[in-house]
Amino acid sequence: MDDTGSVNGGLLTGGGVMRFPADKPLRLDGGGVLASLEIAYKTYGALNADKSNAVLVCHALTGDQHAASVHPVTGKPGWWDRVIGPGLPLDPARYFIICTNVIGGCMGSTGPSSIDAATGKPYGLTFPMITIADMVRAQAMLIEALGIETLFAAVGGSMGGMQVLRWASDYPEKLFSAVCIAAAARHSAQNIAFHEVGRQAIMADPDWRGGDYLSHGVRPEKGLAVARMAAHITYLSEAALQRKFGRELQRDGLSWGFDADFQVESYLRHQGAAFVDRFDANSYLYITRALDYFDLAASFDGQLARAFERARHVKFCVLSFSSDWLYPTAESRDVVRALNAAGCRASFVEIETDKGHDAFFLDEPQLDATLRGFLNAQAEARGLS
Amino acid sequence: MDDTGSVNGGLLTGGGVMRFPADKPLRLDGGGVLASLEIAYKTYGALNADKSNAVLVCHALTGDQHAASVHPVTGKPGWWDRVIGPGLPLDPARYFIICTNVIGGCMGSTGPSSIDAATGKPYGLTFPMITIADMVRAQAMLIEALGIETLFAAVGGSMGGMQVLRWASDYPEKLFSAVCIAAAARHSAQNIAFHEVGRQAIMADPDWRGGDYLSHGVRPEKGLAVARMAAHITYLSEAALQRKFGRELQRDGLSWGFDADFQVESYLRHQGAAFVDRFDANSYLYITRALDYFDLAASFDGQLARAFERARHVKFCVLSFSSDWLYPTAESRDVVRALNAAGCRASFVEIETDKGHDAFFLDEPQLDATLRGFLNAQAEARGLS
Repeated sequence: MDDTGSVNGGLLTGGGVMRFPADKPLRLDGGGVLASLEIAYKTYGALNADKSNAVLVCHALTGDQHAASVHPVTGKPGWWDRVIGPGLPLDPARYFIICTNVIGGCMGSTGPSSIDAATGKPYGLTFPMITIADMVRAQAMLIEALGIETLFAAVGGSMGGMQVLRWASDYPEKLFSAVCIAAAARHSAQNIAFHEVGRQAIMADPDWRGGDYLSHGVRPEKGLAVARMAAHITYLSEAALQRKFGRELQRDGLSWGFDADFQVESYLRHQGAAFVDRFDANSYLYITRALDYFDLAASFDGQLARAFERARHVKFCVLSFSSDWLYPTAESRDVVRALNAAGCRASFVEIETDKGHDAFFLDEPQLDATLRGFLNAQAEARGLS
Repeated sequence: MDDTGSVNGGLLTGGGVMRFPADKPLRLDGGGVLASLEIAYKTYGALNADKSNAVLVCHALTGDQHAASVHPVTGKPGWWDRVIGPGLPLDPARYFIICTNVIGGCMGSTGPSSIDAATGKPYGLTFPMITIADMVRAQAMLIEALGIETLFAAVGGSMGGMQVLRWASDYPEKLFSAVCIAAAARHSAQNIAFHEVGRQAIMADPDWRGGDYLSHGVRPEKGLAVARMAAHITYLSEAALQRKFGRELQRDGLSWGFDADFQVESYLRHQGAAFVDRFDANSYLYITRALDYFDLAASFDGQLARAFERARHVKFCVLSFSSDWLYPTAESRDVVRALNAAGCRASFVEIETDKGHDAFFLDEPQLDATLRGFLNAQAEARGLS
């Protein structure tokens, strides 16, 4: 384990890469096994004496462990800098905050771009298929290795929220509270459809080379950029796109050609181009597949409430955004209904915003206030100072 | 002019390709000129003695002139077979129905895959940019060449509806009535964004060859298929996708791989694969661009009502579908508001359906009933037998 603590902008940060030896393999839902597993993670704050203040922050599809620290590739602030920090809802002075790169990812946790010890070459498509439950299983291994028996909270948005639901279903005994933001208990047909477009875009790129591009020294950048562009539209509401860009032009007048005439085109192209610098195409394939396979009720004979039967002691907070059409409020309501049916205590807030799915990354005061209120109440109940 | 009348399934059908000599060029909004223009069209029914029963049916982005006759490439029925035919709202016994392939298209009208007489090679990207108004200008040339002074009606859905609005603004004196279905007076930021994804998918395909693929004997099939898949999602509502496919699998159990596990994936892949057999990639670029450039009010100092000031004698019918998120009802309402402000008579119906944008192609009894009621009333007012 390579764990370095440092003071970073007032935060005590730590983390590194936890290596699990081959005799502690990760057995996967799809039948695969990851031996010599590595999990990359960051921490903020310090674990208290009775190890009762650990918060696991779970990232979304293209996120990573750099939730509140500068991204080593892009140099940009952490993706949840607005939520994690001194005086913020997740204050490192109070909590020991852990964020892990999911397995299958490309920021240090074992994924398809990792070297397969058996061959000495990148896994590529020989990487085993993974599920959201597998991601959570790996996180549980890390949490245990860090000596933490119970998480004060698991918190996440989007795919992070799905991990939180899986924590509640698979490790309720390790959970005190759970915050699930802008997520769903399963991927809808439309969700699957958009992911399939992205995968087809990647696999259509001749530089994908059947998934073996790293061995050839190339990367399917164009296909990955198209995948990102298509997905990015789903992260914003139509109203947000209209407000931000409308039909505003890049220059005076139309180009009468296929250059980016409209600001929204330029914005999307930038989103695509910036993404390929920091993300691996095969990771995109594997993680979108894990999302598509996600159907929590399916593990419980189609009875979502049964997923939460062992989690009656966990306090839940479920949040949705009114303009989120990727994981609409109705899907959060389904989760809340199942929690109630299982006898769990759940707060539910639909936040009115026109910012769409990505609102959980953005300046959304009601999100901050709700998170702060819920976490403070649970911290008091837990006796955290 | 190559015009062959025939009896096809009980319909008197005709049409062919109208060739306009170079001394009758089509001057385009973007500054280009198309000389030796060809317009491919189909007709159903017969023009009456006083030439008062002509209906122009305008097709959508990937449509063509085969509105009610078997498609020569796919062998499938016409795309509006449900609306055009004996006993249907557009009955060839009463109306002379004309449907033209838009310029820029690939089913016989001059477009980027046509041979440029100046070079003897396909236009490719040397084809001039076109607009919705240019498409309508070409249609007006055809209508005039057919000896028709006034259309009884211009009717169209989606991009066809935008052509109808442009007919009302640019040729009101040639119009008796107008039916605009599931359209908008301008393309929104989200509309542009989805089209840009499609264009980038096509242009990312190395077989696109900078637009010159026909000269190289290849076609950017993979890119075009991805473009179609992304667009196709926008044609269906989330509810329709969920009802049709949900999370139904192709086979028993998951493949744990990147095959099409879910029926919705297989459906989308089929949509993409079938599309490339009948559509030209550059046509897709040009026509999506024409749509993105469409902003009817912009031609009238941003005052949409002014577009309709000369159309006070035209009877309008505006239809939208409640679950259409591509051109939502609010955008049809904007059109109706502008029509009212201009002093035009407009019927407006929002049809309750969960079928999304594509409802105008599908079994939607309220659409049929509304079309029939409106057209019958106008036919009586026009004195059609």
